[in-house]
Amino acid sequence: MYKVKVFVTLKEAVLDPQGKAAQNSLHYANYIQVNNMRIGKYIEFDLDVEERAEGERLVDEICQKLLVNTVVEDYRFELLEV
Amino acid sequence: MYKVKVFVTLKEAVLDPQGKAAQNSLHYANYIQVNNMRIGKYIEFDLDVEERAEGERLVDEICQKLLVNTVVEDYRFELLEV
Repeated sequence: MYKVKVFVTLKEAVLDPQGKAAQNSLHYANYIQVNNMRIGKYIEFDLDVEERAEGERLVDEICQKLLVNTVVEDYRFELLEV
Repeated sequence: MYKVKVFVTLKEAVLDPQGKAAQNSLHYANYIQVNNMRIGKYIEFDLDVEERAEGERLVDEICQKLLVNTVVEDYRFELLEV
């Protein structure tokens, strides 16, 4: 079995209003050291497969089909054997 | 300057309806190998400080004050010098 971590981020060229709003709040509170804030998704799950290669193929398929909107989002993932 | 990555997750004891819904959709599509899905936030930003210790203190403060609801969420972060 594997613990899977998926990181979903908006593509560089896509505006991120949520990240911009959070950054503005921080600047307003005098945390002016913070810039280029982007907010994405962090997805964890258990994957019940034996082989790493099969697991990676499956996670990639799941990301493309359901978890990620590949028009505006990028993703990467890690598999940790447990 | 540092690139900061913050991972925000719901606490173990807190139900995650979004993760549950995504998992149900996957099961429905026959991806029954997926379990315990949890969906959190993945936040990236640039932090303009010189010292790592100062950066870590600042990120921790920012997380507690704005980015994380510490009643129901946990967080961890990484600083990468650039």
